[in-house]
Amino acid sequence: MKSIEFTSNEGGAILLVDQRLLPHEKKILIIKSNSELIAAIQSLAVRGAPALGVAGALGVGLIALRSEQNGWSQQQISQALVDLRSARPTAVNLAWGVDQVSPLISSGSKLVLEAAMAISQADGLANRAMSKLGAAYLLEKCGQKRLRILTHCNTGALATSQWGTALGVITELHQQGYIKEVFADETRPLLQGSRLTAWELSELGIEYRILPDGAAASALFAGLIDAVVIGADRIARNGDTANKIGSLGLAIAAQAANIPFLVIAPESTIDRSIADGSKIEIEFRADSEVTHFAGLPVAPVGAKSYNPAFDVTLSKFITAIITEKQLYHVSEGVEL
Amino acid sequence: MKSIEFTSNEGGAILLVDQRLLPHEKKILIIKSNSELIAAIQSLAVRGAPALGVAGALGVGLIALRSEQNGWSQQQISQALVDLRSARPTAVNLAWGVDQVSPLISSGSKLVLEAAMAISQADGLANRAMSKLGAAYLLEKCGQKRLRILTHCNTGALATSQWGTALGVITELHQQGYIKEVFADETRPLLQGSRLTAWELSELGIEYRILPDGAAASALFAGLIDAVVIGADRIARNGDTANKIGSLGLAIAAQAANIPFLVIAPESTIDRSIADGSKIEIEFRADSEVTHFAGLPVAPVGAKSYNPAFDVTLSKFITAIITEKQLYHVSEGVEL
Repeated sequence: MKSIEFTSNEGGAILLVDQRLLPHEKKILIIKSNSELIAAIQSLAVRGAPALGVAGALGVGLIALRSEQNGWSQQQISQALVDLRSARPTAVNLAWGVDQVSPLISSGSKLVLEAAMAISQADGLANRAMSKLGAAYLLEKCGQKRLRILTHCNTGALATSQWGTALGVITELHQQGYIKEVFADETRPLLQGSRLTAWELSELGIEYRILPDGAAASALFAGLIDAVVIGADRIARNGDTANKIGSLGLAIAAQAANIPFLVIAPESTIDRSIADGSKIEIEFRADSEVTHFAGLPVAPVGAKSYNPAFDVTLSKFITAIITEKQLYHVSEGVEL
Repeated sequence: MKSIEFTSNEGGAILLVDQRLLPHEKKILIIKSNSELIAAIQSLAVRGAPALGVAGALGVGLIALRSEQNGWSQQQISQALVDLRSARPTAVNLAWGVDQVSPLISSGSKLVLEAAMAISQADGLANRAMSKLGAAYLLEKCGQKRLRILTHCNTGALATSQWGTALGVITELHQQGYIKEVFADETRPLLQGSRLTAWELSELGIEYRILPDGAAASALFAGLIDAVVIGADRIARNGDTANKIGSLGLAIAAQAANIPFLVIAPESTIDRSIADGSKIEIEFRADSEVTHFAGLPVAPVGAKSYNPAFDVTLSKFITAIITEKQLYHVSEGVEL
């Protein structure tokens, strides 16, 4: 499944699986302008660090195309790039995707779009590679048996352009016959686990159960889990990893229960310009994500929230980070 | 505020604040039969370990009264007691409340009800006592300053007959002028934190923010929290503590962040018949609590869940347990 691609129909448009409507409805959003793309990114119609990388690159293609069609000034182009690049702050991939292809704008939209599609294809290949590395590592670490894996948020084909990162490892293990069951954290407040991961697992025919995020430690200590795998939105040079809120507590609990905790992410997620996680900007989101549910209040009127979209898992709690290139033993002090 | 009491009106009835409707509506349920009481307990119209103790004792009063009014056989009485006693398995207080007063049935319903109301009153006094102990301990441990306290689930007047346990400590600190802000875990799946604790905090005029359970570790590591306080549903002799799902992960994260983690509970919560937490029966609840929200599905059709209502926090993760009687340093190996 491809969650994001480009079509030359409709005068040129980006096609996105609208992740806000899953698991009830699979609808394709047709994105025709930069502001529509930014709105889709900010409202989480498209989300997931690698998918945001592809969205950023394709978005530059759309900017190049519209500027050709409408004769934009250099300043209009620059403003559009800045707006897109900063639509969400934490995942490095969005800015990375924009930066990869924007130097090509002067060579024409066709080249930009080809480069963006190459990024998407490379993302799929990278995901396959890291999934094989991760699956082999887990089978060596846990023994050649059917594994029970816990994961957080969504890191599947929806979060990437195809295949997935942490969920890619699960898919790889499943195809090799080595998955017994997946525990999917529901991932509050936006329920990417119960809405998106559960949907992907059910499409893949993998046995799964959904659990409240707070129940993960119980499952880990009850001996129900062989390993935990998550994705990443930005990784510092020392291995500190920004990922969906809830990842830090999960990593600490896994370590306390002596269960391997792996981060699976492409090299493009590594931001070697920052030494450690304290330099990663964390996005805070609206109170209403916590105080309301599907428009209904679940808290007193006017209640405030503490609602960071991400947290930073310190590298000392991470057994290993696995990319398409290699495995990094960050808790042992290895730099990326 | 009293969350549960008895009235001789209506032919004798238990009055309960219906906790399912908060924070939107404060409605008093009028409970006239044992089966109505059991339904109220199982659907969580009344919940919270100490409140269940009072509900159990008042329930025996209601059984005694109805048996007098309707001439029940000894077997009918016994069956009613068994049904009530086992309505929920994890909190020891329900069975404890039933057992405290059922020997009095042969002496008549008036005596049973008086004993039950004495339990309620004693619960309120115990809560005040443990709150003072807890507040004094925290001010000594953290310094005489306005504290930022994180709590999980609901342990206020709603969860007890009056005043509260962990939330009682917060109330005590607030009345002494030592609360800066409370972070209330929303407490999935049933949102006792955002629905009940937030409502009580707002009634008390205490500054608070609601956070997803998964965000607690982030708040702890960001230096936003001075101490964590929770209640308990059952405590084993070695201090292992069954409490609302999510407590275990919170305790582990607090220890990793070097932040005091206190359990505040009445002596009646201690079950000295069990050596450690492995002997505590954990209640599992319906998939729909996780897969649905207010009747709306949030997961694929047929999705299964891992939905324990409680977890067991090992005593090694607990800085101290505080009851109305004393403080137990359980992580140092003290037995209760």
